Amino acid sequence: MLTNIRIVLVEPKGSGNIGSVARAMKNMGLSDLAIVGRGRTESFWARAMAVHAKDTLKTARRYATLREAVSDCGLVVGTTCRGGLYREHSRSPRKTAPEIVAAARSGQCALVFGPEDHGLDNDDLRYCQLLITIPTDAAYPSLNLAQAVTICVYELFLAAMENVPAKEIERAPAEDVERLFDRLKTSMLDIGYLDPQNPEHILFAFRRIFGRAGLEEKDVRILTGLFRQIQWYVNEGWKVVEEKKRKGQKIR
Amino acid sequence: MLTNIRIVLVEPKGSGNIGSVARAMKNMGLSDLAIVGRGRTESFWARAMAVHAKDTLKTARRYATLREAVSDCGLVVGTTCRGGLYREHSRSPRKTAPEIVAAARSGQCALVFGPEDHGLDNDDLRYCQLLITIPTDAAYPSLNLAQAVTICVYELFLAAMENVPAKEIERAPAEDVERLFDRLKTSMLDIGYLDPQNPEHILFAFRRIFGRAGLEEKDVRILTGLFRQIQWYVNEGWKVVEEKKRKGQKIR
Repeated sequence: MLTNIRIVLVEPKGSGNIGSVARAMKNMGLSDLAIVGRGRTESFWARAMAVHAKDTLKTARRYATLREAVSDCGLVVGTTCRGGLYREHSRSPRKTAPEIVAAARSGQCALVFGPEDHGLDNDDLRYCQLLITIPTDAAYPSLNLAQAVTICVYELFLAAMENVPAKEIERAPAEDVERLFDRLKTSMLDIGYLDPQNPEHILFAFRRIFGRAGLEEKDVRILTGLFRQIQWYVNEGWKVVEEKKRKGQKIR
Repeated sequence: MLTNIRIVLVEPKGSGNIGSVARAMKNMGLSDLAIVGRGRTESFWARAMAVHAKDTLKTARRYATLREAVSDCGLVVGTTCRGGLYREHSRSPRKTAPEIVAAARSGQCALVFGPEDHGLDNDDLRYCQLLITIPTDAAYPSLNLAQAVTICVYELFLAAMENVPAKEIERAPAEDVERLFDRLKTSMLDIGYLDPQNPEHILFAFRRIFGRAGLEEKDVRILTGLFRQIQWYVNEGWKVVEEKKRKGQKIR
């Protein structure tokens, strides 16, 4: 199931790092590498650092956006070395690896790493249902990109070696969940719940809760139904209620 | 006690690797680096890869032999990626890290890594009381030197942290969650989303999703806010919208 886990590098700067990532992936039995942006997989340094993992470089896919890179993934896990807003709920790789491996038994998963200099930004984090922070010494928490990947794929490999029972939840594809969030945002704006100046702030809380829960296709349908109903109510529903009120009928 | 653990590199070839090792060490709270042989700690690549761990490079000590490099150590642990003679008793880093950390509480320890191309030879192994092998995929068991060190120092760091309890989600009291569900039910009935004959059916799906996520008090507040807003919209909000419509104003 490790082949169902995609390593996604967002805008990596150093091509040597990309090669080192490819090597670490192959050491730990992973092969699905995706690059968002222009990171060079065919440079001298990429190939030199990959050593015997040049095949992983060769089959790496390139995407324009993170959303596209993870569109078919049921579980998307981001990595961050910072705490702070939207990042409070990040967990350790050790704790999260069994969950990722369990999800990978039944579908595609992604583990996402940001650029070397500043990591994933809040826009990127929107697509991540879970967050990982590698524990480090407080004096120097910033890991080299390839070394961060090494630790994560090592934990995934160990988790895969233990007999993790298949997870009962089968997460819906990320793109379906994104469409749900689009609808959720619209309907929450409609009823005046979200601040139109900064709707993402509260949306993050919902992303976090649902990310933690994991949404199956059935759940996505039910939640979509709720938010569709809110939109229906905004557009049409109140007329029905008004009419009933006018006639003195019971509303519920 | 992590400062009592020395990382010993025997005849490292790449000075970039030495810099990467220094960085990984500092990330995980180690500072004692020793080089056996001529590895260059002051080269451009060593310093470039060390980034903010140049101090670790600077204080690195150089030894002519492994014997000298570990002479003051109570526990010396070697690393190998091969099995075979003298290597049958090697263990995983995860299993060995607590033992190294325990030993480091009372004295100096060393963790020894061989050259990139062939690792520690049998002569080197003589000085090692324990052996570590990092688990890998059989198809490509040879790790980059700095990545191997990264995994080992990461395990040491975690073993040293062990006594720190991990921060879990603090679930809100059940009664608060029940009040949330009461409100959720009412507002979903208000907008005609729940079947009044059997509201519990869909409610179960929400209980399941939120139960899986675990709701903190903050989450309960946010969700309560949403369902309160739906109720406000049902009772009052549409009047505001109607008024705006009547005046030909923009609604959002």
